[in-house]
Amino acid sequence: MTKANQKPIILAEQVQTSLTNLEPLTRKVYISLNPPSPQDNRAIVDQFRHRMEHSYGSVHVPLTLMSLISGICTRAGWQVTATLAETGQGWTVIDLEPGNTAQQHYGLAIDIGTTTVVVYLIDLCNGKVLKHAADYNDQVFMGEDILTRIRYSSEPGGLDSLQSAVLKTLNRLIKRLYPLPAETSKITAAAIGANTTMIHLLLGLDPSSICRAPYTPIVNNPGIIHAQEIGLDIHPLAPIYCLPSIGSYLGGDVIGGILVSGMHRQPDVSLFVDIGTNGEIVLGNEEWLVACAGAAGPALEGGVSAHGMRAEPGAVDHVSINPVTGCVEYSTVGNLPARGICGSGLVDTLAELFVGGIINRSAHFQNGQKEFIVVPAHEAATGEDIVITQADINKFMATKGAVNAATDLLMENVGCDWREISHFYAAGAFGQYLPVESAVTIGLYPDLPRTAILRLGNSSGEAARQVLLSRTKRLEAEEIAGKVTYFELNANSAFMDKFVSSKFLPHTDLDRYPSVKKRLQTGSKFSCVI
Amino acid sequence: MTKANQKPIILAEQVQTSLTNLEPLTRKVYISLNPPSPQDNRAIVDQFRHRMEHSYGSVHVPLTLMSLISGICTRAGWQVTATLAETGQGWTVIDLEPGNTAQQHYGLAIDIGTTTVVVYLIDLCNGKVLKHAADYNDQVFMGEDILTRIRYSSEPGGLDSLQSAVLKTLNRLIKRLYPLPAETSKITAAAIGANTTMIHLLLGLDPSSICRAPYTPIVNNPGIIHAQEIGLDIHPLAPIYCLPSIGSYLGGDVIGGILVSGMHRQPDVSLFVDIGTNGEIVLGNEEWLVACAGAAGPALEGGVSAHGMRAEPGAVDHVSINPVTGCVEYSTVGNLPARGICGSGLVDTLAELFVGGIINRSAHFQNGQKEFIVVPAHEAATGEDIVITQADINKFMATKGAVNAATDLLMENVGCDWREISHFYAAGAFGQYLPVESAVTIGLYPDLPRTAILRLGNSSGEAARQVLLSRTKRLEAEEIAGKVTYFELNANSAFMDKFVSSKFLPHTDLDRYPSVKKRLQTGSKFSCVI
Repeated sequence: MTKANQKPIILAEQVQTSLTNLEPLTRKVYISLNPPSPQDNRAIVDQFRHRMEHSYGSVHVPLTLMSLISGICTRAGWQVTATLAETGQGWTVIDLEPGNTAQQHYGLAIDIGTTTVVVYLIDLCNGKVLKHAADYNDQVFMGEDILTRIRYSSEPGGLDSLQSAVLKTLNRLIKRLYPLPAETSKITAAAIGANTTMIHLLLGLDPSSICRAPYTPIVNNPGIIHAQEIGLDIHPLAPIYCLPSIGSYLGGDVIGGILVSGMHRQPDVSLFVDIGTNGEIVLGNEEWLVACAGAAGPALEGGVSAHGMRAEPGAVDHVSINPVTGCVEYSTVGNLPARGICGSGLVDTLAELFVGGIINRSAHFQNGQKEFIVVPAHEAATGEDIVITQADINKFMATKGAVNAATDLLMENVGCDWREISHFYAAGAFGQYLPVESAVTIGLYPDLPRTAILRLGNSSGEAARQVLLSRTKRLEAEEIAGKVTYFELNANSAFMDKFVSSKFLPHTDLDRYPSVKKRLQTGSKFSCVI
Repeated sequence: MTKANQKPIILAEQVQTSLTNLEPLTRKVYISLNPPSPQDNRAIVDQFRHRMEHSYGSVHVPLTLMSLISGICTRAGWQVTATLAETGQGWTVIDLEPGNTAQQHYGLAIDIGTTTVVVYLIDLCNGKVLKHAADYNDQVFMGEDILTRIRYSSEPGGLDSLQSAVLKTLNRLIKRLYPLPAETSKITAAAIGANTTMIHLLLGLDPSSICRAPYTPIVNNPGIIHAQEIGLDIHPLAPIYCLPSIGSYLGGDVIGGILVSGMHRQPDVSLFVDIGTNGEIVLGNEEWLVACAGAAGPALEGGVSAHGMRAEPGAVDHVSINPVTGCVEYSTVGNLPARGICGSGLVDTLAELFVGGIINRSAHFQNGQKEFIVVPAHEAATGEDIVITQADINKFMATKGAVNAATDLLMENVGCDWREISHFYAAGAFGQYLPVESAVTIGLYPDLPRTAILRLGNSSGEAARQVLLSRTKRLEAEEIAGKVTYFELNANSAFMDKFVSSKFLPHTDLDRYPSVKKRLQTGSKFSCVI
């Protein structure tokens, strides 16, 4: 099992597409120009553009570059490297460097979550992730969930503050990518996966229409933006591509997830679930895609329990309860004294409590117990017991119940049976660290053959990497956006019924969890009421 | 004859192309959008772009506009007018106005001469000139001719000063176009005809390589520039198209002249001559075009004689000398007391002095006369005699001799005889006001059938108007630029020989001027030595 403490943030290696044909948003071209002479007395800008257009079609040379080109060429002995950026309509030259710097070619793949922001430094020569950095989105100080932020944006100066906050976060993370490359202005392209509200706040666009009928954002597909237009601290003319949204509740992060999963190209039906602060569920195949979305809460990002935390050093990330002694064994990120419990630790704990009979199928402690001590005070860095309470469990069950209810409703509506699901793709925090067996045990993941359960990791970040590197993938993302049908949960009273009846472990319908049912029936250590 | 005082600056009406198919650099499109509703819940930017792309192909919507679109549409009841600007690669939306403003659509055709700058306000709905304004180029304070300015640009701060000077001139002239349109930001496009050095100085590009072997400018075809990039006081994102140059000595003004003449589309050979501060001569037809260029001096812009002036109020513009009484009759621009003599007045005076026998064929006063009084002191606004001196005549003859020598050399080189010339196109100051008969009499114009002599007026300005209005014309200008062969006069020692022997009236070879020869032989008033 991948240790969370070894790779705290990973891209979806299981499904990572090998992009054989790199077509990044910017290109670096090393050329040797002719110094002006009686034999070739073309104007240097014209000669340069002519050379570029030979390979790239229409190429725009900005005025700022025209005034520099002669000096740079003379000093460099007429051997220079041009950086061309895609404009959406052709190419524009954004940089010219002396000599051959074609191998120093960097871009950013960015995932802006409501809670967490991750920036990956990508080598545009080979597509590899060179480095990454992650942190909380500074916007959390202005509201933890999307609705609070949208409301905040309507206050005087609110939108500006929210835009500044996410840019401050991004620019701080970009600095952490030092010392490679030496100057952040050498990063010449970026692609972003984020939900619709995050994109609006990043671009300084009023998000208020997102949560007001008829729920239409200002823009779903902003096209190419330049870094200087928003103040992202990379090359000022660097093109920024945002993965397109489908609407207010289905953002580029979900489109990215579908893109990375490849479910839109498979004949069989797949289920895609991304649970972060919001939850999105997509069902479909190469012919159709149906999706729904809703608030999920920070259950899996460490925000649900009194001792919850992100998968940072000191977080309890794996838990097992000895069936004989009842003793708890756990590991922590970085093998440091425990400070709290992260999402994967919580899921492990709940699964162990359930199979150990300490909580019952409706997720309540048995025998009047009020809490469970995961790490005793004398082992904890905090000097206090690290516990899971009934209240913590209830909050978690609300998230789980919402996911189960939404998935069931979506499938019913499409007329799709569980047995038809060929693959289950788990994205986001939900798909990054969670232990598969435990997630199945408590019904967070469906009980499919384990080879059909694929964890995409940060699929929003991986999708950003792919569209950063590939024009084909950009077009594919836009095709997906045009193909998804949105299924409105809130308008559906059946959702509440399903939600209320979904709060069972692993699921209301135990027959949908045959492997869990079998463990519950045969396992030596089980004593809970089934 | 067109009175100079009625139309001090005109476009080439004789050859003005009727542009039936207007394709201006910017378009205004009035559209009615759907307010977001459950029936059409597309994001408003996406809906807007989709509508634009339906007619215009790839359309870029800048971020600044995305943040305004919703508010503008709501206030305007979803009826708006978009301004689209050509980017060279597609279209970008540069403005959005409430309601239908499609009929308020303005652009500028600009002629930047070394000495004089003219700005025409064009109605982009019908191509008509609504207004114009002209003034000296403020750069004249930093040098009268191109070489002096190029030298000045190498001094510290020199290039900036020259760029500021021409922009100050342009912005002053744009203000004079008030009150139509009400705001200069409503002018959304501009096209410019100018020589290569003027374009470099306007764009802030170092012109020093223009006068240094191998005489290559930085750029011949700058493509689309935006107004804000140089500080032109119109819409900041307005596209500016500069007529392409051919090289250091053949600028967009000459390309424009060829374009306006249409000589590049005629099977017969034509001769095009533009004499301003510089002189350019083009010979050719639909198959080939050969051109040469050189300094001409300000002879025809009022700068040659002690009493020379531009065709402004009080300038003597027409002169005749009564063959019986010897009395001078003259007219002035605006019928005001005379202040000086402009180009047309000078040419008239010389022709009259020549046919009246007061100067001989080598342009020298007869009988020890030192000067000729055109306007006696008591009639002049200055209270002084307005005279033409031998020194004035000599300076003028240098210009005329250079034009004759260059034309003859060019024709000899191509192996073209005078009898093959189907049309003579006179452009610039040279083709704007000069009285045809007088110009032929002194050999400034060739002695062709008068219907074959066509005066283009400000062909640089007219060409700017055409390319402002027509994409076809822009492509045609670029084709012309690719077709012209430059003939280097300075490298040709034969030029000096021809120049020295060219200083005769009307020409060294009188047989080339049959109509003048006939007048000289038969005219009652002629008494000069022939």
